[in-house]
Amino acid sequence: MLETLKSEVYKANLELPQRGLIKYTWGNVSAFDKASQLFVIKPSGVNYDEMEPEDMVVCNLNCEVVEGKLKPSSDMPTHAVIYKKFDDIGSVVHTHSPWATTWSQSGLEVPAMGTTHADTFYGAIPCARFLTPEEINKNYEYETGNVIIETFKEKHINPHEVPAVLLRGHAPFVWGDDCQSAVMNAVVLEEICKMNIFTRQLNPFAQTLPQEILDKHFERKHGANAYYGQK
Amino acid sequence: MLETLKSEVYKANLELPQRGLIKYTWGNVSAFDKASQLFVIKPSGVNYDEMEPEDMVVCNLNCEVVEGKLKPSSDMPTHAVIYKKFDDIGSVVHTHSPWATTWSQSGLEVPAMGTTHADTFYGAIPCARFLTPEEINKNYEYETGNVIIETFKEKHINPHEVPAVLLRGHAPFVWGDDCQSAVMNAVVLEEICKMNIFTRQLNPFAQTLPQEILDKHFERKHGANAYYGQK
Amino acid sequence: MLETLKSEVYKANLELPQRGLIKYTWGNVSAFDKASQLFVIKPSGVNYDEMEPEDMVVCNLNCEVVEGKLKPSSDMPTHAVIYKKFDDIGSVVHTHSPWATTWSQSGLEVPAMGTTHADTFYGAIPCARFLTPEEINKNYEYETGNVIIETFKEKHINPHEVPAVLLRGHAPFVWGDDCQSAVMNAVVLEEICKMNIFTRQLNPFAQTLPQEILDKHFERKHGANAYYGQK
Amino acid sequence: MLETLKSEVYKANLELPQRGLIKYTWGNVSAFDKASQLFVIKPSGVNYDEMEPEDMVVCNLNCEVVEGKLKPSSDMPTHAVIYKKFDDIGSVVHTHSPWATTWSQSGLEVPAMGTTHADTFYGAIPCARFLTPEEINKNYEYETGNVIIETFKEKHINPHEVPAVLLRGHAPFVWGDDCQSAVMNAVVLEEICKMNIFTRQLNPFAQTLPQEILDKHFERKHGANAYYGQK
Repeated sequence: MLETLKSEVYKANLELPQRGLIKYTWGNVSAFDKASQLFVIKPSGVNYDEMEPEDMVVCNLNCEVVEGKLKPSSDMPTHAVIYKKFDDIGSVVHTHSPWATTWSQSGLEVPAMGTTHADTFYGAIPCARFLTPEEINKNYEYETGNVIIETFKEKHINPHEVPAVLLRGHAPFVWGDDCQSAVMNAVVLEEICKMNIFTRQLNPFAQTLPQEILDKHFERKHGANAYYGQK
Repeated sequence: MLETLKSEVYKANLELPQRGLIKYTWGNVSAFDKASQLFVIKPSGVNYDEMEPEDMVVCNLNCEVVEGKLKPSSDMPTHAVIYKKFDDIGSVVHTHSPWATTWSQSGLEVPAMGTTHADTFYGAIPCARFLTPEEINKNYEYETGNVIIETFKEKHINPHEVPAVLLRGHAPFVWGDDCQSAVMNAVVLEEICKMNIFTRQLNPFAQTLPQEILDKHFERKHGANAYYGQK
Repeated sequence: MLETLKSEVYKANLELPQRGLIKYTWGNVSAFDKASQLFVIKPSGVNYDEMEPEDMVVCNLNCEVVEGKLKPSSDMPTHAVIYKKFDDIGSVVHTHSPWATTWSQSGLEVPAMGTTHADTFYGAIPCARFLTPEEINKNYEYETGNVIIETFKEKHINPHEVPAVLLRGHAPFVWGDDCQSAVMNAVVLEEICKMNIFTRQLNPFAQTLPQEILDKHFERKHGANAYYGQK
Repeated sequence: MLETLKSEVYKANLELPQRGLIKYTWGNVSAFDKASQLFVIKPSGVNYDEMEPEDMVVCNLNCEVVEGKLKPSSDMPTHAVIYKKFDDIGSVVHTHSPWATTWSQSGLEVPAMGTTHADTFYGAIPCARFLTPEEINKNYEYETGNVIIETFKEKHINPHEVPAVLLRGHAPFVWGDDCQSAVMNAVVLEEICKMNIFTRQLNPFAQTLPQEILDKHFERKHGANAYYGQK
């Protein structure tokens, strides 16, 4: 079932430590199959050296395991909510990458300070609120997904223009059209989180990127008349 | 004698530089054998390239060498005290990993700022006091162990819930059920020490993790109803 | 056409991630052929694993592609302006290396704080202004080149004495006699940007390098009586 | 001539980039032969990939080349002065390692904040003054050596107890009994420079290591009754 997607998800999970985003098993990647409305996700807490593509778990949008001999990542319900409520998301990545996690712990959104940001994210990356005790005790990982959706709705952010969120006191969730772009977006997020901390320290009065440069850089890569790359 | 444990201790010591926790020989791992009440520890100041599993030294809880042609790590008595006074510790790790050492030098405890912390440590990681001149001159490494015990007793901390301590002006000691988990706990400590310094710099008013999220994350991995991983 | 130069440009582009200056394809190197007044540049957005020397694109100083089956880097016009307006530049490098990008985002010039700086850059590295909305909408990448030229003219800086500029809110452009020296200058820039942030934090009153030491170090490597190296 | 020493010096130079202390050729290691009163040093500005043990240059304490087809490191006279004026130094290392260079640029001495420091350096690592214009124009590298000697004399520091110095606005010089220990001392210096910057940021009131712990750690490794290691 979904063997190609399993292989992609497997490779993308291995990419997380290779690109310095995680240590051990502190992250997970999933990918969505639009035709079947199912998604493939990493099993929970399995050592990457021992993991095989066929260990990936297939789940549906009701958070049920459809196929797989192992338990899915404990964050599976968060992935499910993102696929269910945001249209056309192809892949979701969760990491504890240190600089993005530092911003998550700070409770602050990541402002657009430069074109590295604008090439991928059209505006500030929001930081979601803490879950309430009720939400935590009800269904923690599912409610985490709901708080992500709420954040984008309340701030009127298009998840295709800003494909990442920080969970307060936790770490980032990032998404994209496919596994490769979702992982790349997680790498970009980590890099801008690192640079923005030090930009602020170097010059507390550093201004955010002017709107017209934000527009220009996002458009030249992602707009209708994009001219970056070979397309 | 204890050949399997020697092999594990040997491998865990090599893991310290591989995971970026130490340079040269600036660390040591030991592991405890409950049946014989003996522990196996790295020899002192031996180059890792020349070290073999059979060079590991076997010691008892009275800090005596039971087997081994080399001298044990000079920190051996600190390990002995931890095994003697804390029940059911399987392995002890000492490193000078830079971010944890920075916190040790600062004299501050490491507050729980996020779920990366809560997944492993149930609350702040304490910083033990400096040893007195008398303690230093008496039996430095043994008294270091006593100060660790005193710290957990006075602060009413369960060493199984917070498996690490910072020695003021020195560096961390970390422990776990076995070599692998003790080394992993040392990696987690290093990562949260790095993130927490910058969290504070980014937002001096960043709040520590709400108690209910600390509970939730520690419980889902280590509680009676833990659901993380494949168990 | 220009096969040797293509090979050099290809290798220099691969050097960017190897030396930690970029991730993915976030940079580009070009090199100029004085005889033909043409330059060779990396294609846009091509994965480095799949890139071959023959994929390099040949352009002229009017920003036209002279040879190549792929589209050139979208930053090609900026390279063209630099070759056209600054005499005797052999190679241009653009990266988003994190510390230099942090300074670019801060809007500050990089002062000469030490001899690591003086060995390569004779004085502060300027930060160019933001482009105006008109410049952005006209021909963004070409106007970026013009703003670089304007910066050096207004500040009376010799581009052979200070072979780098920061683009405000963006990232650095660096140049040199050939690909190797241009990449090395980009490495030096990254290193001094890192060190200078922390020099200021450690001692906000740290003074810039005395003029006579700046002179001495730049001269011993680049002056008429240079005595560094084997020449 | 001195073939064994040439091989050691060659290997130690390669160790500098391997241990992350330098990029390119930004450093040099030399070693002294007591019997002949000659020292062996790296040639100037030679690419490490192309360097061979027989390229090492033999010099005497009058800064003359005794053997070698290549020019010695331009810093050679600084090495000569250190061997001449400090007794029993076996090897000298110069790097631009980033954290130690940051302290050099700050103009501050490195205080002993922890036992990582005390295990190698018995007290603060001094920062030498800037050279005067007269010294710079006379014989820059030789006078640099003299300023190092002056620093230790004026501050009554024993170079065997504190085997390193920061040159203001420049970078560190480090020494030891042989190439291996000199390189290791340079690694320790780099690590404590990194940790001490952040210790101060984390707790501006962090106190330096109590004298009795400084004594204890330096003595247990380097004192008459040292008990670290296998000796």
